[in-house]
Amino acid sequence: MPAPSKVVTACLVVIGNEILSGRTQDANLAYIAKWLNERGVRLMEARVIPDIEATIVTTVNECRAKFDYVFTTGGIGPTHDDITAASIAKAFGVPLVRRDEAVELMRKFYGDANLSEARLRMAHTPEGAEFIENPISRAPGFRVENVFVMAGVPLIMQGMLESISHIIVGGEPVRSCAVWAHTPESIVAKGIAEIQNRYDGVDIGSYPFYRDGRTGTTLIARSTDTETLEKVQAELIEVIRAAGGEPHLGDATDLKPGT
Amino acid sequence: MPAPSKVVTACLVVIGNEILSGRTQDANLAYIAKWLNERGVRLMEARVIPDIEATIVTTVNECRAKFDYVFTTGGIGPTHDDITAASIAKAFGVPLVRRDEAVELMRKFYGDANLSEARLRMAHTPEGAEFIENPISRAPGFRVENVFVMAGVPLIMQGMLESISHIIVGGEPVRSCAVWAHTPESIVAKGIAEIQNRYDGVDIGSYPFYRDGRTGTTLIARSTDTETLEKVQAELIEVIRAAGGEPHLGDATDLKPGT
Repeated sequence: MPAPSKVVTACLVVIGNEILSGRTQDANLAYIAKWLNERGVRLMEARVIPDIEATIVTTVNECRAKFDYVFTTGGIGPTHDDITAASIAKAFGVPLVRRDEAVELMRKFYGDANLSEARLRMAHTPEGAEFIENPISRAPGFRVENVFVMAGVPLIMQGMLESISHIIVGGEPVRSCAVWAHTPESIVAKGIAEIQNRYDGVDIGSYPFYRDGRTGTTLIARSTDTETLEKVQAELIEVIRAAGGEPHLGDATDLKPGT
Repeated sequence: MPAPSKVVTACLVVIGNEILSGRTQDANLAYIAKWLNERGVRLMEARVIPDIEATIVTTVNECRAKFDYVFTTGGIGPTHDDITAASIAKAFGVPLVRRDEAVELMRKFYGDANLSEARLRMAHTPEGAEFIENPISRAPGFRVENVFVMAGVPLIMQGMLESISHIIVGGEPVRSCAVWAHTPESIVAKGIAEIQNRYDGVDIGSYPFYRDGRTGTTLIARSTDTETLEKVQAELIEVIRAAGGEPHLGDATDLKPGT
């Protein structure tokens, strides 16, 4: 696991044809991104890939070499299209094995009579994997080295994340401050770029919005250093005022309509 | 452009720190996926990457070699963090140039007085790029070879997609049929796997749901061949009935609550 002093990175691999066909809107990326942020881990990339073994193997192997943590969602259910566990085993070059502890967990949850062959698929992990507890429906996720394999159903995925909360070691959490105004971003662009140039460890993003028939901009600064962030916020406010705008603290997209 | 007889593939590259920080929920993937499906193009992968030039260059170069079409969203606005155009130029090894036609379009839309230096950023494309018309706010997207660079704001992105509708040449459109039942997927898993094994050109997905306090499963079969799809649908219905379930046509997630 990475030392807490450096920037700790993560990648999310969303596995599922249903996302790529547009049938299902992914709801896990934003949740995981925020959850990681709070722990000082930066989500650097996300990939959405189909239920194809070769693609899962290649993607996971590429990402686990590149990032401190890799999280996968999807494909660990009881049906023929749930091939994530087998694919991860292949990625690590280990056999897929049936785990008695997982069988027991599921036996208690489903009862002996309902422990079908299909459900027993969910008791398989790559050899040597550690379980990730599933507080909702028991069939566990698992971890191999820096790869955390979780369910795609958001509620179950969220439960699994809580189960690994103590394992994830992040760097300094990234803080953010936001300022918005009914000012088009092109008007403040030059001033913002100048601030960005002066602050190396700060990342300033500019996001246009349309709201009650008016355009506007939210400016968000991110940094691990709270003091610097306060200075940047004051300068952002100044740039908006200099452009004739009225700055408000916060992110305009978080406000309720009509406010 | 690819011949219409083969499977035509696409990749979406979502460019933006705001998606990776969890601030903004991506709304473009599902829209683009469906739009491409209707045109016989299969979205095979999506990547969400940060506003970092080196990452954009590497990702775009990898994806444009691997897929027939690459679509990017985000990072073509007027501010310092909009670095997509410059990064795409770098990916193709051509200079970024200011385009008089784009300046003219924007001059008409914004007026002379409002044509700031920041807005003129949006008149730059890689040398040799073709414009993608923006029916909403004029500043165009662009295309270099098989890479289509579009805005991140959903409404503008959707307008741009319509503008390139005549350029995208797909293969045979993938049709789908859906059946759902209040039957847990583990109960039908074996029967579904047997159907999947018998139909090579069909892709069957199984998606559990929770609805009005009951669990259930939607089964979706996809294929370019309508006749085969009808046979598969009949067999899926049979498997559900054999498991004691009551099959309904359609996708359970499309139904209104309470129905």
